[in-house]
Amino acid sequence: MQNTVESIPQEKSLGSVCDLPLPPELELEMEQEILEEIYKHSEVSSSQYGINFFIIGLFLLLACSIQVVGVSEKDLKIFLIIPMLIQVLWMLWYILRNSTKKSGQKEKDVHAGARWLRCGISFFALTTTAMDALNLGYFVGYRDCMPLADAVYPVAHFIHTSFQVYFLWFHSQDVIKSYKTLERFGLIHSVFTNLLLWASAVTTESKHQLIEHLGRLSSLGFVNISVDEIKPLCNCTTGICHEFSKGIYYIYPFNIEYHILASAMLYVLWKNVGNHMKHHGNKRSFNLHGVAIGTILGLVVLAVTIGAAFIYISRIGRSKTSSESALTIYYWYSIIVLFAMSLASVIGLILYKMENKPTVQGHSPSIKLDANLLVCAASGSWITSWGAILALMFAGSYQMYTWFNLPYSVLVIIQKYVQNIFIIDYLYCEDEHHILDDIEIPIPIFPSEAMLFENHTAIEAFTEEVKEEKDKDGYIGNILEDNIVEKNSSEYNAKNNPTDNGNEKDKTKSLQPPDNPTSSNKLQDSPRFRKVILKNLTIFLFLCNVSLWIPPAFGCRPQYDNGLEVSVYGFSPWIILVDIALPFSIFYRMHSVYSLFDVYCKI
Amino acid sequence: MQNTVESIPQEKSLGSVCDLPLPPELELEMEQEILEEIYKHSEVSSSQYGINFFIIGLFLLLACSIQVVGVSEKDLKIFLIIPMLIQVLWMLWYILRNSTKKSGQKEKDVHAGARWLRCGISFFALTTTAMDALNLGYFVGYRDCMPLADAVYPVAHFIHTSFQVYFLWFHSQDVIKSYKTLERFGLIHSVFTNLLLWASAVTTESKHQLIEHLGRLSSLGFVNISVDEIKPLCNCTTGICHEFSKGIYYIYPFNIEYHILASAMLYVLWKNVGNHMKHHGNKRSFNLHGVAIGTILGLVVLAVTIGAAFIYISRIGRSKTSSESALTIYYWYSIIVLFAMSLASVIGLILYKMENKPTVQGHSPSIKLDANLLVCAASGSWITSWGAILALMFAGSYQMYTWFNLPYSVLVIIQKYVQNIFIIDYLYCEDEHHILDDIEIPIPIFPSEAMLFENHTAIEAFTEEVKEEKDKDGYIGNILEDNIVEKNSSEYNAKNNPTDNGNEKDKTKSLQPPDNPTSSNKLQDSPRFRKVILKNLTIFLFLCNVSLWIPPAFGCRPQYDNGLEVSVYGFSPWIILVDIALPFSIFYRMHSVYSLFDVYCKI
Repeated sequence: MQNTVESIPQEKSLGSVCDLPLPPELELEMEQEILEEIYKHSEVSSSQYGINFFIIGLFLLLACSIQVVGVSEKDLKIFLIIPMLIQVLWMLWYILRNSTKKSGQKEKDVHAGARWLRCGISFFALTTTAMDALNLGYFVGYRDCMPLADAVYPVAHFIHTSFQVYFLWFHSQDVIKSYKTLERFGLIHSVFTNLLLWASAVTTESKHQLIEHLGRLSSLGFVNISVDEIKPLCNCTTGICHEFSKGIYYIYPFNIEYHILASAMLYVLWKNVGNHMKHHGNKRSFNLHGVAIGTILGLVVLAVTIGAAFIYISRIGRSKTSSESALTIYYWYSIIVLFAMSLASVIGLILYKMENKPTVQGHSPSIKLDANLLVCAASGSWITSWGAILALMFAGSYQMYTWFNLPYSVLVIIQKYVQNIFIIDYLYCEDEHHILDDIEIPIPIFPSEAMLFENHTAIEAFTEEVKEEKDKDGYIGNILEDNIVEKNSSEYNAKNNPTDNGNEKDKTKSLQPPDNPTSSNKLQDSPRFRKVILKNLTIFLFLCNVSLWIPPAFGCRPQYDNGLEVSVYGFSPWIILVDIALPFSIFYRMHSVYSLFDVYCKI
Repeated sequence: MQNTVESIPQEKSLGSVCDLPLPPELELEMEQEILEEIYKHSEVSSSQYGINFFIIGLFLLLACSIQVVGVSEKDLKIFLIIPMLIQVLWMLWYILRNSTKKSGQKEKDVHAGARWLRCGISFFALTTTAMDALNLGYFVGYRDCMPLADAVYPVAHFIHTSFQVYFLWFHSQDVIKSYKTLERFGLIHSVFTNLLLWASAVTTESKHQLIEHLGRLSSLGFVNISVDEIKPLCNCTTGICHEFSKGIYYIYPFNIEYHILASAMLYVLWKNVGNHMKHHGNKRSFNLHGVAIGTILGLVVLAVTIGAAFIYISRIGRSKTSSESALTIYYWYSIIVLFAMSLASVIGLILYKMENKPTVQGHSPSIKLDANLLVCAASGSWITSWGAILALMFAGSYQMYTWFNLPYSVLVIIQKYVQNIFIIDYLYCEDEHHILDDIEIPIPIFPSEAMLFENHTAIEAFTEEVKEEKDKDGYIGNILEDNIVEKNSSEYNAKNNPTDNGNEKDKTKSLQPPDNPTSSNKLQDSPRFRKVILKNLTIFLFLCNVSLWIPPAFGCRPQYDNGLEVSVYGFSPWIILVDIALPFSIFYRMHSVYSLFDVYCKI
C-alpha cells in the first residue's frame, strides 16, 4: 500500500479535472459527490444558524426570568411571533412547491412520522389550541391593561400550530433529495422555533410551580417570602379570568409535549435531507391478543397513580403532618411501581438475549434520534436522583420520610437504565420480514443461478402453502420460519448428497412439519410463549410510563417538597437544577411511551 | 411492495430459527449480526454508565464550589483518585492483553490518533507532569497542615498521565473488533474520568480568575468584597510556596487542554469499537513550500497578540484610565485580527466552491467528532457574544469603550461561523489519491473486461511516465490528473470511432500534454495557484488561532472587565455563564488549530 501511495505525485489538484470534458459516467458520479458535499456544507451552516438563533432566544428568556431592566414579557412575545410567522411562510412555500410533484417521485422514510405519532401530535395540537383560546379569553378580560402583544401571540400561535400539524401530517416522511439550502434552513429554523417555544413554556410552567411551592412553604411557616404571580393592574371585565388562568396551567404539560415532539419530528426531516433510504415500507401490526394480564396490571397502576397524585396534590402544604403523610404515600407508591417496572425490563432483556435477533444494518436517523433522546432525557432525572442520594450522604440530620428518598432515587436510576436498554435493543431489531428476505439469499455452497431460482420458487410455494394453513388456523403461522430454514438445510443436504435425486413434488412434501408432534410443539410453543410474555411486559411498561408522566406533569414535585436537598445545596442552586432537569424527566416518560408503542408493534 | 409484505404471515418469530441447524453461510451471517447487536447493547449500557458516573462527579464538584457542609476538597480528591486508578488498571490489562496479538491481526483507523496529535498530547502531558511536581512541592512546604490526599493526588495523577500517554501513543488507532464489553466500559470510564479531571481543572481555574477579577474590581473601588484564595493555616517551610502556587496557575491552561484532548481521543476509540474501516492508510504530506506570506502574516499576528495580552494583563485593574485603555487596545487588536481571519475563511470557501472536491463517502467517527466538537465548542463563545450584543441593546447608559464590544462580538460570531464551514468542508474532502483510485474505475459505455484491463495498464504506464518527468521537474506533477481524464475521454472517443485504430504506442503518445503551451499553462497554473493561496490562508488561520488561544488562556477576560454585561444581567448570572462558556471558547481555539493542521496536510 505504501508503494501505491508513493507512486502518486504529490503536486496535483482536482480543480483541473473539472475544467476538462469528462466521460458521462465520471461526470454523473462526480455530480453526485458534489451534491453530497453541498449537503454537508448546508448541514453545517444551517445547524450553526439554528444554534445562534436558539442562543438569542434563550438569552431573552433568561433576561425575562431574572427581570433585567429594559426587557419585558412583551418583547419576548414579539420576538417569538416573528420566527413563528417566518416558519409559516416557509411551510406554505414548501407545501405549494411539493404539490406540483407527483407522489411517485417522492422518497419516503417509513421509520419517521408513524401514523400514531401524527395522531399524537394532532391531539397535543388540539389541547394547545384550547390553551390559545383560553389565553385570548384571559386577554379579553383584562384588555384595558394588557399589551396588544398578549392578544397577537395566541392568534399567531394558533396559525403556527394549524400549519405545522398540516405540514407534519403530510410531509413528516419526506426525504428531500435535490440540493436545497432553503429546505435545510427552513427545517432547522422550524426545529429551533419549536424548541424556543418549548423552553418558553417550560420557563412559565416552572415559575408557576415555584410560586405554588413558595406559597406552600410559607403556609407551613418555613419561609417568609410571599411571591404572587404578576397580575394585570386592572379588574377582570368578564369575571372568569381566574378560571381561564387556572385552565391554562392544566394544559401547559400538553403544550410542552407538543413542541418538543414537533421539533423532534422536524429534526428527523432535517437529518433525512439527502439521505439514501435503504429500508422498504413495513406494515406495523397492532393487536391486543393475549395481553390481558399486562393491560390489567398496567391499568391498576394507572388507577393507583391517579389516586396517589390526587392525595399528594390535595394534602401537600396543608399542614406539616399532612405534607409528611403525602410524601410517605407518594414514595411508597413510586418505589413499588418503579420496582415492578425495573423487573419487567430485566425480564424483557433476558428474553431478548434468548431470541438473538439481528439488528438493522443501515440505521435510519429517526431510530438513532429515538435512542439518543431516551438517553439524554433520562439524564434529567439521573441528575436529580444523584443529587438526592449525595444530599442524603452529606446531610447531618434527617426526617423519617426522607429515608424513602434513597430507595426511590436508586430505583429511578435503575429503572431508566434498564428500560432504555430494553427499548433501544428492540428498536434496533430488524423487522421480521426483513429476516425472511435475508433467508432467501443464503444458499448452499457452490450455488448456480439455476439452483438459486429453484430454491426461491420452492420457498414461494411453501409460503403460499403455509399461508393457506394459517387462514384456517390463526396460530400456525409462526412455524413458517422454522420450516423455511429446515427446508434450506434439507435442500442443502439434498444438493450435497448426489444419490438423493428427489423431484419437485417430493421436496414440497419434505417441507411439511415433522411427524413427531411433541418436538414440533416444543419448537412452536417456546417462541410464541416468549412473544406473549414480551407483549404483556411491553404493554405493562407502556401503561406504567403513561402513569408516571401524570404526577410530575400536574405538580407532584417531591424534589421541592421533601426539603432535604434544599437544605443541603441551598434554595436557589437546587431549584434551578430541578427546573432544568424536571422537564427532561417529564419528556422522558412521554417519549418512552411512544417508543414502547413502537416496540410493541415490532414484537 | 405492499403485496410482498402481505404475503408474509404476521405470527412468526426468529427465536425458532436459532434452534435449528443452519447452513454455514447463514450461520456466519447471523453470527455477525448478533455481534453487531451486542455492540449496540454494550454501547448503550456503557454510555449510560458513563453519564451516571459523570453526574456524580459533577455533583461533588458543585458541592465543593458552593461549599456545602459535609464536603471538602479532600473528599473530591479522594473521589477523583479512585477512577484514575481504575483506569490505570484497565489500561494495564488492555496493553498486556494486546501485546500477545500480532500486529497483522489488528485493524487500525488511520483518521484517528495522527502522529502530530500524539505529539501534542505528549507535550501537554509533560506540562501536566510539571504541574504535579509543583503541586507536590507546594504540599511539602505546607506538609504540617495539609491533608495527605493533597500529596497522594499529584502522585496518582502522574501515574495516570504516564500510563495514559503510553496507551494513547500505541493504541489510539485500534479498532476493537471482537465482542468485548470490558473494553467498552473501560474506554467510556476513561473518557469520563478525563472529562471529570477537565471539569475539576476548569472549576479551579475559574475560581482563581474570579478571585483575581474581584481583587481588580475592589482595587478600582467598584465593589467592597475582598475574597482571598484559601491558604493553608501554617507557614511555608520551604519559602517558595508562593512561587509554586503561581507556577501552577500558569500551567493550568495546558492541563485543561490535555484532559479534553485525551477524552476526545478515547471517545474516538470507543466509537470505533466494532466499526468496519473502509479507508486505506494515507500518508500526509507536510511541507512549507510557498507559504511564506501566510506564515509571516501569521507570525506578525502572534507577536502583536503577545504584546496586546501583555499590555492587557499589566494595565487592567491598575486604575480606571489604564483599565479603559487596556480594554480599548484589546478590542481594536481583536477586531482587526478577527476581521482578517473571517476574510481568509471566506476566500478559502470561495476557492473551495471553485475546486468542487468530492467528499468522503463512509465517514470515520474521528472526522465526525472533529466537526461536532468544533460546532459545540464554538457555541461557548457564541453564548458570551450574543450576551454582550443583547446587553448593549438592553443597557441604558454606556461607557465609550463598551461600544467596541459590538463589532468585537459580531466578528467573533461571524469568524467562528465561517471558519467552521471552511474547516469542516475540507475535513470531509476526499484525499487526492482516493480520487485517483476513483478515476481508474469509470470507463466508457459498454465496457468489456478486456477494455478495462487495457485502460488500467495504459494509466499505469502513463503514471510511470509522469513520475519520471516529475523527478526532473518538481512542478509538472499536477498535470497528471488533467491528462488521465483527457486520456479517458480520448480513449472513449477512440473506442466509439472504429476508424481510429491506434496502437499502444500511439495511445501513449496521445497522453502527452497538448502542444498549445498557453492553454496547457493556464490549465496547470490555475489549480496550483489556488492551492498556494489555500495553503497560505490555512497557515495564516493556523497561526491566528494559536494567537487567539493565548489571551483568554492566560487571563485576558474582557467579558469580566468591561462591566457592561455584569451591570445588565447581574454579577452571579453573568459570571456563571462566562465560567461555563469560556473553557469551551478556549478549547475551540486549540481544537481548530489541530483541525487546520489536518486541513493543511490535506490540501
